[in-house]
Amino acid sequence: MPVFLNTADADFETAFAALLGAKREDSPDVDNVVAGIIADVRARGDAALVDLTQKFDRLVLTPETLRFSEEEIEALVAAVPAHERAALELAAERIRAYHARQMPEDAQWTDESGATLGWRWTPVSAAGLYVPGGLASYPSSVLMNAIPAKVAGVERLAMVVPTPDGVANPLVLLAARIAGVSEIYRIGGAQAVAALAYGTETIAPVDKITGPGNAFVAAAKRRVFGKVGIDMIAGPSEILVIADGDNDPDWIALDLLSQAEHDESAQSILITDSPAMAKAVVASVEKYLETLERRAIAGPSWRDYGAVIVVEDMDRAVALSNRVAPEHLELCVADPDALAEKITHAGAIFLGAWTPEAIGDYVGGPNHVLPTARSARFSSGLSVMDFVKRTTLAKMTPAALRSIGPAAETLAISESLEAHGLSVRARLSRLNE
Amino acid sequence: MPVFLNTADADFETAFAALLGAKREDSPDVDNVVAGIIADVRARGDAALVDLTQKFDRLVLTPETLRFSEEEIEALVAAVPAHERAALELAAERIRAYHARQMPEDAQWTDESGATLGWRWTPVSAAGLYVPGGLASYPSSVLMNAIPAKVAGVERLAMVVPTPDGVANPLVLLAARIAGVSEIYRIGGAQAVAALAYGTETIAPVDKITGPGNAFVAAAKRRVFGKVGIDMIAGPSEILVIADGDNDPDWIALDLLSQAEHDESAQSILITDSPAMAKAVVASVEKYLETLERRAIAGPSWRDYGAVIVVEDMDRAVALSNRVAPEHLELCVADPDALAEKITHAGAIFLGAWTPEAIGDYVGGPNHVLPTARSARFSSGLSVMDFVKRTTLAKMTPAALRSIGPAAETLAISESLEAHGLSVRARLSRLNE
Repeated sequence: MPVFLNTADADFETAFAALLGAKREDSPDVDNVVAGIIADVRARGDAALVDLTQKFDRLVLTPETLRFSEEEIEALVAAVPAHERAALELAAERIRAYHARQMPEDAQWTDESGATLGWRWTPVSAAGLYVPGGLASYPSSVLMNAIPAKVAGVERLAMVVPTPDGVANPLVLLAARIAGVSEIYRIGGAQAVAALAYGTETIAPVDKITGPGNAFVAAAKRRVFGKVGIDMIAGPSEILVIADGDNDPDWIALDLLSQAEHDESAQSILITDSPAMAKAVVASVEKYLETLERRAIAGPSWRDYGAVIVVEDMDRAVALSNRVAPEHLELCVADPDALAEKITHAGAIFLGAWTPEAIGDYVGGPNHVLPTARSARFSSGLSVMDFVKRTTLAKMTPAALRSIGPAAETLAISESLEAHGLSVRARLSRLNE
Repeated sequence: MPVFLNTADADFETAFAALLGAKREDSPDVDNVVAGIIADVRARGDAALVDLTQKFDRLVLTPETLRFSEEEIEALVAAVPAHERAALELAAERIRAYHARQMPEDAQWTDESGATLGWRWTPVSAAGLYVPGGLASYPSSVLMNAIPAKVAGVERLAMVVPTPDGVANPLVLLAARIAGVSEIYRIGGAQAVAALAYGTETIAPVDKITGPGNAFVAAAKRRVFGKVGIDMIAGPSEILVIADGDNDPDWIALDLLSQAEHDESAQSILITDSPAMAKAVVASVEKYLETLERRAIAGPSWRDYGAVIVVEDMDRAVALSNRVAPEHLELCVADPDALAEKITHAGAIFLGAWTPEAIGDYVGGPNHVLPTARSARFSSGLSVMDFVKRTTLAKMTPAALRSIGPAAETLAISESLEAHGLSVRARLSRLNE
C-alpha cells in the first residue's frame, strides 16, 4: 500500500520527512568494472568495442560494421507505419519550435568607464547521444536529446545504441534521422561512453555526452566527466499531482500510473485537499492495476513508493511540493496559473487537468529530460543551454584602464600577486610618459 | 625552458598534440580520506567539525564559535586600509553591473494548437561558498562567487573559510560583507563541504556549493554532487596570448607571468606570427623571473608548461587556439574584434593590448571563475545561470489536446507505455461524449 499522510496528524512532519529522505535507488557498485572497460577501450579502441559487444550484446561486429550504414537505416525505417512516422514528425516539430526560443543572445555594451564588455555564445562542436537498448529504448528520448543539440548549432551528433542479439528499434533510428543525428553506432554500455569520450579508430571523440542509461552507463559518464561534458545523471522518474476535489479520479490515477509504469523505483505522489478525492483516486489506481500491461512494474512502484497526502488547503500543498521539488508537477486545480506562481522548485509544471504529464513526454514541446531526486532545487531540465557555452568579452581603452586599472593593481598587491599588478602598472606607466 | 614550436617545422603537429595532451595536474588520491570525513560530519555534526578543525587547522572551536560573530567581523574589517576597501567596492560594483545583465527572462506564449507553453526561472534557495585559507585565499574570488548568487536572488548565502591557527583574512571577510554573504563559518576542507551539503546542528544545509579548493575540497564536492549542485572542479589556471609583432614584449611577458605566478602547474602560451616578438617576450619573461616575488612558483610553471608557438599567420593562430580552448585568451593584435569572431572555444577573451588579463581577475566585470583544462569546449564560466533553474510550463486546452493528443497516444503505444496512452485517451474520450 502507498503511504497515506494527513497534515492534521500529529506525526505528519516526521512521516513527511521520512518520505522525503527515503532512498529509492539501489545503485550497484559497478565502478571497478567500468574503470576496466574504459581503460580497455582507450587502449585497444575498435578491437575492444568489438569484443565487448560480442560479450554483452551477443553480436559479432567488425570495425566496419560498428556504424549503421545509410542503407541499413533506410531499410529499417521503411518498416515504420505511417501513423507512427507522422506522430514522431509532429513531436519533432513541436520540440524544435519550443527549443528554438531558448537560444540565448549575445551581448556587448560600453560602460561609463569606456570599457566594452559582453559575451558570445557558441555551440559545442560535437555531441554524443546515448540511447539505451531493450525496454527503455525510447524514440521520444532521441528527439528530446538530439533536437536541442541541433537547435544549438552542434555540427556533429553521434548516437550510440546497443542492439542486443542484433535487434534494432526502427522507431529509434527514424527518430534519429528526423532529429538530424549524423552517425549511429550499434554499441552500448560503458564501452560506448568511453568510445564517445576518447574516440577510437572509427569513432571520433565528442565534447559532450547526454542521454540516459543503466548503472554502467551512469558510472561511465561520471568517470569521463571533465574530459567531456555530461548531462545530469538521471534517477528514477517522479510525479507529484496537486488536485482539488473537482477532478475525474480516473484521470489522476492514470497520470500517477504513467510514472509508476516506468520503473519499480519510480514515485507517484498525490496531494489533495479533498479526502474523498484521495480515496477515489486510490480506488481507481487499484482498478487499473488489475489490467495494466505493465502492472508488474507499476504495482510495486505504487505500493512501495506511492504516497497520498491530504492537506488543509492549497497553500500547504504548494509548501510540501516545494520541499519535494518534483521532476513533474501537475496542478489539477481551478486556477493552476495562480498556484504555479507559488512553485519555487519543480522540473516541469503541467497546468490544469487537461494537461496530462504524458503530453510533456512526447508532443508538448518542453524537454522531458528533467531533474530527478529533488535536484530541481538546483538544476534544470535539458535544453539548448546544455549545448552552448559562453565566452566573456572585455576590451579596455587607455582611458578605461586609467579609470579602473589602479583598483586592479591595489587588489593584486593585496593578494600578493605581483605580476598581476605589474601587468596593469606597465600599461598605466605608458599613459603617464 | 618552455616549449618552442613553429608551424613550419615538420614535426609540429606531433609536438602540438603532445602539448595539448600533457597532464599538468597531479591529483593525489584522497577519496577514501574524504569519504571518511564526510561520514564523520554526517554522523556527528558539529562535534566532528570541532574535532577536524582542531586537527587540521590547529584551532579549538565550540559549536558556538564555528560561526564568526558580527562583532568579530566588524573588528577585523575595520583594519582594512581605505584604498583597499575602495578597490573592493569598485570591483563589486562592476561585477554586479555585469552580472545583472545575465538574468534570464521568463517566457510564455500560446501556439497555433492552442497550447500555452513557456518557462520560469527561480533562484536556488541557499548557496554555500567555499573560500580557501592561506595563500590562495582571494577576496576577489569571494566577490566573483557571491555576487552572481545575490544577483540571481539567492536568499541565503553561507560561506566557509578555514582560519589555520586562528588567522583570518580581513579582506576576505570584507569582500563577503560587501557581496552580501549572510553567514561565515571558520571551517574548511572536506568537512566544510560536508557541513554545507548535509547540515549540522549549527549549519543549515544548502542546495548548491561553489568555490575553489584543494584536492580534498575537490574530492568532497565530487562526492556530494547530486545531493547538492556544485560548480566546475577547477584545474590549474591557463592563459593563451595571440600577439602580432607590434606589441611591447614586457606587457606580454607580464601577462604570461600573471598566470604562471598562480601555480607551478599553471600554463602560459604565446602564439605569434613574429619570430622577433617571440624572442623578445621570452627574454622579457626571463628578466622578470629574476626578481619576481613569486619566481619560485612562476619559474617552474613557465619552464615546465610554458610554450611559445610561431605561426605563419593569424588564421593559424586562431585554429590552434580553438584546439587549446584556453581559459583566458588575450588578443594583442591590430583588430582584436575581427579575430575574436573566429574564436569558437575560450572561457574569456581580452581584446587588445590595453586589456591585460589581470583586469578580468578583479575589476573588469566578467567572472574570473572560468573553465580550465580545455573544458571551454563544453562549459562556461561562473554566472548568474549557476544560481537559477528553469521550470518548464505547459497548459493544454481541450482543443489543443484534441489537436496533439492523438500523436502522444500513438507514441506512448509504440513505446509500450499503456498508462501514458490511457491518460491521454481518457481525456480525449470525454471530448467525444
